[in-house]
Amino acid sequence: LTKATTIAIDAMGGDHAPLEIIRGAVLAARDLQVKIILTGKKDIIEAILHQEEGCCSGLDIEIVDAPDDIPMDEKNPARAVKRGAKSSVVVANKLVAEGRADAVIAAGHTGAATAASLFELGRIEGFERPCICTLIPTHSSRILLIDAGSNIEATAEQMHQTAILGNILAKILLSGELCASRIMKEQGLRAEDFLPKIGLLNVGEEPGKGTTLYKDTYDLLKNESRIDFVGNVEGKTIIDNVCDVVICDGFTGNIHLKALEGGLRMMSKSFEREFKNRGLLSKIAALILKLSGTFDRIKDHFDPSSYGGALLGGLNGVSLISHGSSNAEAIKNACKHAQVLVSEGVVGKIKNSF
Amino acid sequence: LTKATTIAIDAMGGDHAPLEIIRGAVLAARDLQVKIILTGKKDIIEAILHQEEGCCSGLDIEIVDAPDDIPMDEKNPARAVKRGAKSSVVVANKLVAEGRADAVIAAGHTGAATAASLFELGRIEGFERPCICTLIPTHSSRILLIDAGSNIEATAEQMHQTAILGNILAKILLSGELCASRIMKEQGLRAEDFLPKIGLLNVGEEPGKGTTLYKDTYDLLKNESRIDFVGNVEGKTIIDNVCDVVICDGFTGNIHLKALEGGLRMMSKSFEREFKNRGLLSKIAALILKLSGTFDRIKDHFDPSSYGGALLGGLNGVSLISHGSSNAEAIKNACKHAQVLVSEGVVGKIKNSF
Repeated sequence: LTKATTIAIDAMGGDHAPLEIIRGAVLAARDLQVKIILTGKKDIIEAILHQEEGCCSGLDIEIVDAPDDIPMDEKNPARAVKRGAKSSVVVANKLVAEGRADAVIAAGHTGAATAASLFELGRIEGFERPCICTLIPTHSSRILLIDAGSNIEATAEQMHQTAILGNILAKILLSGELCASRIMKEQGLRAEDFLPKIGLLNVGEEPGKGTTLYKDTYDLLKNESRIDFVGNVEGKTIIDNVCDVVICDGFTGNIHLKALEGGLRMMSKSFEREFKNRGLLSKIAALILKLSGTFDRIKDHFDPSSYGGALLGGLNGVSLISHGSSNAEAIKNACKHAQVLVSEGVVGKIKNSF
Repeated sequence: LTKATTIAIDAMGGDHAPLEIIRGAVLAARDLQVKIILTGKKDIIEAILHQEEGCCSGLDIEIVDAPDDIPMDEKNPARAVKRGAKSSVVVANKLVAEGRADAVIAAGHTGAATAASLFELGRIEGFERPCICTLIPTHSSRILLIDAGSNIEATAEQMHQTAILGNILAKILLSGELCASRIMKEQGLRAEDFLPKIGLLNVGEEPGKGTTLYKDTYDLLKNESRIDFVGNVEGKTIIDNVCDVVICDGFTGNIHLKALEGGLRMMSKSFEREFKNRGLLSKIAALILKLSGTFDRIKDHFDPSSYGGALLGGLNGVSLISHGSSNAEAIKNACKHAQVLVSEGVVGKIKNSF
């Protein structure tokens, strides 16, 4: 990375905004070779930066005032974005559109962030609908799930397009420093030789499974020579790394993601409850697991924070959607994610395929 | 339960058939007030029953010979069922159709079991498509997910019908001995006063979320006076018991279920790997958790075995689909499940609503 990447961050979006967002920006500016532009209420951001001054003097952080914000319960984000030219999420996206920043990160209202990126950055010509490209955990690694919730009523052709995009993105993300593919490492493959395995999320592995939409998409992917299509995959088996990219429509992807999130949270809680309610021995066991780092390692592997953000794929610019619950660490990781995507020229590579 | 329920079981279906299925039948005949009819290859079933004789002498178990079986990789189960009049799954369903049994349990090919039940038992008049009604775990209880994978391309009206069916089924299953609703108990409610909360699985809680199918279904459920519709629910929040029944189409339900299964398995494996690879202290912690029963309690809560089987709803008879991995305990639990459904007259109650 020769030139510092400039990243615009919506300081006002997210459950823990603005404090955790700004802290994340400070971490990124300190630890990564990036320049940060924070958008939002200038006086508030300045006050928080001042508070954190000890660690941030001399850091490359700029503030661009954006007095409006879009609340998390906004029912019509597209309209709010059209009217909210001075909202923090719109201003952050404008910075990328104007070439003043290389990437934008937003942890607020997903619909508003998507609408703002769509309006300000525009679609890549030939790519019909933006898609959310999320990294999800497997037993030993991470894989890409596309679309995680943007294009709710997708067509087979649009899902076909996301597979082409996913192929490019997996080469960048899964072979890079951000998330090394275990299998690739084992086989001693170089990044440029990495041909991602693409699977279609479905209710069974056999061809002919699923709705008409999924049968049609299967046929398109099977006949696409540019990708290594491994066929239908199931939610219970993708955790065994049967593929590197899982393709689905936005509705199905979001259902999958939230079921997974619910399941993981339920199991964590079960252990917590057991440790709390049971006898002394269980408490000792819990203490050992805590001290030995077992809990932290497992938590880290499944924690969405460590994934940073999901690329909003198919746009004329790098836009990352971060989890609403993002803390400082998550924002820093999103910046790292953005840095990799920008330096690898992800938008240009996608453009070349459409 | 005054009269013994007669349950036909496909002895040849399932990953661990016939041994575990027959052992489960023996457990059920021994521990529950039920009569069992096993269908399948008579000589094999007799040999296994003979082996297990010590515990099963005097038990009420009959064998009905059914020499054919339908393999798990059968691509066209409907055709196989039409041709396989002497397959164990068809014969078991015939017993219910002929009134010789009150319920049927099958752990083999789900498509074949569904087709066999549909052909032999027939649909309840007015109920368009059968649905799989599965119990899934929450933090503290269990809830019903309908449809878990039968009606892949459902209409809003068909989903509306499953909500009416789910309301009836929840009253039987969630207020009975099989799966007590925590909330109900806390509020000191009697079974007859229990009005199940019905939620629509979706990608967000606000009205207007999801595909056209889900928007249309939402409108139908909102205007249905016979149920307590709580609106859209998400996979990450249903674990907090926000509702008793989750309605979705078969494709989406199956995606949800498999994501949940994958997530739970991934987390279990993470703990196992930690205990295996880390130092002595972690091993001691693991031993304590094992000895104190923590692992078993958590495993039991999430284990599909303890759920027994899922009712194939909307048919003229009680047909339960058990998990392919069913062991003896799972089959026994399915028998208990069937016993409750038969004694509560589930089919009659559903018929009265259509």
